[in-house]
Amino acid sequence: MKQIMIIGGDGFCGWPTALHLSSKGHDVTIVDNLSRRAIDEELGANSLTPIESIETRIAAWKEVSGRDIAFLKIDIAKDYTALEAAMASLRPDTIIHFGEQRAAPYSMKSPVEKCYTVDNNIGATHNLLCAVAGLGLDPHIIHLGTMGVYGYDDDGLEIPEGYLRVYIPGDDKTLFQRDILYPTNPGSVYHMTKSMDQLLFQFYAKNDRLRITDLHQGIVWGTQTEETRLDDRLVNRFDYDGDYGTVLNRFLMQAAMDHPLTVHGTGGQTRAFIHIQDTVRCLALAVENEQTDTGKVRIMNQMTETHTVRDLAQVVARVTGAAIANVANPRKEAAENGLRVSNQSFRALGLNPITLEDGLLAETNEIARRFAHRCNPEMIPCVSTWTDNQQPGVVRPVAATRSIAA
Amino acid sequence: MKQIMIIGGDGFCGWPTALHLSSKGHDVTIVDNLSRRAIDEELGANSLTPIESIETRIAAWKEVSGRDIAFLKIDIAKDYTALEAAMASLRPDTIIHFGEQRAAPYSMKSPVEKCYTVDNNIGATHNLLCAVAGLGLDPHIIHLGTMGVYGYDDDGLEIPEGYLRVYIPGDDKTLFQRDILYPTNPGSVYHMTKSMDQLLFQFYAKNDRLRITDLHQGIVWGTQTEETRLDDRLVNRFDYDGDYGTVLNRFLMQAAMDHPLTVHGTGGQTRAFIHIQDTVRCLALAVENEQTDTGKVRIMNQMTETHTVRDLAQVVARVTGAAIANVANPRKEAAENGLRVSNQSFRALGLNPITLEDGLLAETNEIARRFAHRCNPEMIPCVSTWTDNQQPGVVRPVAATRSIAA
Repeated sequence: MKQIMIIGGDGFCGWPTALHLSSKGHDVTIVDNLSRRAIDEELGANSLTPIESIETRIAAWKEVSGRDIAFLKIDIAKDYTALEAAMASLRPDTIIHFGEQRAAPYSMKSPVEKCYTVDNNIGATHNLLCAVAGLGLDPHIIHLGTMGVYGYDDDGLEIPEGYLRVYIPGDDKTLFQRDILYPTNPGSVYHMTKSMDQLLFQFYAKNDRLRITDLHQGIVWGTQTEETRLDDRLVNRFDYDGDYGTVLNRFLMQAAMDHPLTVHGTGGQTRAFIHIQDTVRCLALAVENEQTDTGKVRIMNQMTETHTVRDLAQVVARVTGAAIANVANPRKEAAENGLRVSNQSFRALGLNPITLEDGLLAETNEIARRFAHRCNPEMIPCVSTWTDNQQPGVVRPVAATRSIAA
Repeated sequence: MKQIMIIGGDGFCGWPTALHLSSKGHDVTIVDNLSRRAIDEELGANSLTPIESIETRIAAWKEVSGRDIAFLKIDIAKDYTALEAAMASLRPDTIIHFGEQRAAPYSMKSPVEKCYTVDNNIGATHNLLCAVAGLGLDPHIIHLGTMGVYGYDDDGLEIPEGYLRVYIPGDDKTLFQRDILYPTNPGSVYHMTKSMDQLLFQFYAKNDRLRITDLHQGIVWGTQTEETRLDDRLVNRFDYDGDYGTVLNRFLMQAAMDHPLTVHGTGGQTRAFIHIQDTVRCLALAVENEQTDTGKVRIMNQMTETHTVRDLAQVVARVTGAAIANVANPRKEAAENGLRVSNQSFRALGLNPITLEDGLLAETNEIARRFAHRCNPEMIPCVSTWTDNQQPGVVRPVAATRSIAA
């Protein structure tokens, strides 16, 4: 059993991961600055599900499972000394790093949020790596990255797991083969920070022989996992606001509130998805199958299926009976793109995913309808624009509704 | 004539650039936090040349040239508000960004300097870009990058100017042609921050249509330019300490102090060089030949010749009569590497460089010998090690001396 430090362990992915690893018998310490809760306050938003304080969560877990989870309130981006002291004392076998601002729309709101996202995310990642190297520790570091670093240029090629094989022409036109870090094309300040993280990992893996796994995750949907379902006080957060709510959550809330599903642009954007239950399974697989190579970062794509936003809306419309409306796209991105992604690493480790088709009805009933009375519908539209000359989600003529559904 | 903001305009490259652009009639405002002077204090080091305060420098320039240079003391990495206010008031046509911690050995000293380098360099670059985008300004932004982002993997191929043409195999083995940002392989935390800067530039050029030129500069040698020579109070700094002194400056000081030239390892490391006079000429060429494309960063290699460290030592030995000693290499790098670099862009703009052969004797007499009485020889060795298991510059048996020289 491993000593595991989970940075950002109070958040949407961090909390269920902490519970899952604790349930497997690992010694879990959560390090978190509770910034996600502070941002809720700042935005006047709230999780649809009534999440408890971290103290209550941990006490409830002890009651339910008999297991202890430790908690340290540290802002790792700002307090290097406290982070270093915690590491020196715990000497973790594994460090899981969720400690970054993770909403693309929030990262594009204004200079304040742009600068915060850069300072927080780069500072957190670098402090962590620098402290591990400085202390001479050898933990396996697992970072939650994003599929978004690859960008969504549609060239018809399958997106590999982090590294791209290319051929470079020499002076006499001979082609030299190289495996390079996939050239990034981030679409927001948030995604840009995750691209920059990759360079931090590359350097510290090379220079200090740190063992690093970077998980390029798709958009996470779903709320509950086997462990968070065990007690209402363990419930995971469900964000539906325009900043933190992912597209599927916002569709589900719109459906629960009898509002048309607002599709940005044509809805032709294809994205990769994964259920939160599979996220925690992937994290456990990454923990149990350590990166043993030094020198080169291990990168795995953590996603299970791809859908266009349009198709997603149609599935939700079919399950819930909601209408669909197309609105202007606040993001600067291609109207339509294909997406093919390799996820061979996790498949090979035995991941057997939950599909959207299978899990969506449960999510609708268990979360969106159950807690609909807590929803503030004014929070749902995305109002961050990517540049000044764009208009946030103005509702255009409502497209066909149930008849669209397949 | 242009309104030009020079961030880091009190530094080694910034100061002579400010004078050169002022002499050409541009309106120059220096923005600097004077951090380079503070780091001298911290290290107990000092410029060999007796540099004056920024106020005295500017007053002397007014006396000599009749021209005004403005100065604003702002820490752009920490004080976004002051930076934004300065930009809003000046509305510069051109912003030149030298405002980064620029010594690789300093960036590797300890966690304190590693974190400072990341916070300062990433914070400075991002704040600048974010403020320009937020204010809706359209200046030409010129950044001083480094050849070091390319790394020194010796594959025999010429290093292009920022972008690499590659071929990617598709499903049916058809090759797709792409021009990608050259995959970076930084060798220090400092170089890593410049690699990360590239992703910041890429994003803001794409998302906000900022016009950006990134100059990937070689190792700068030389001290004086046409303008700094006009008055002793205008003298440029000359660093010879193990942190900030470049290899050539340290050789020159060792020669002036009758100490053997300490070559790290075999001295087979090939690097790109440029004289400070050519640096300011390149900057003027970049200012006068604006980047007009938006969407893609213009990258130019700012270097004029390549040498191995061994050859460099031999040239200095020949000119000065010094001996040569090989010491352990504190850096984690290949013992020997070739280097071929394209510098077509500046050649095409008319750059006619000063060669090491031509300029070295003047540098020796004008600076190293003239100010040798100010030298503290204990500051010359490089004591930062790249990892814990390395030894800083322990002197190994002294190799042959003048007989080595070609």
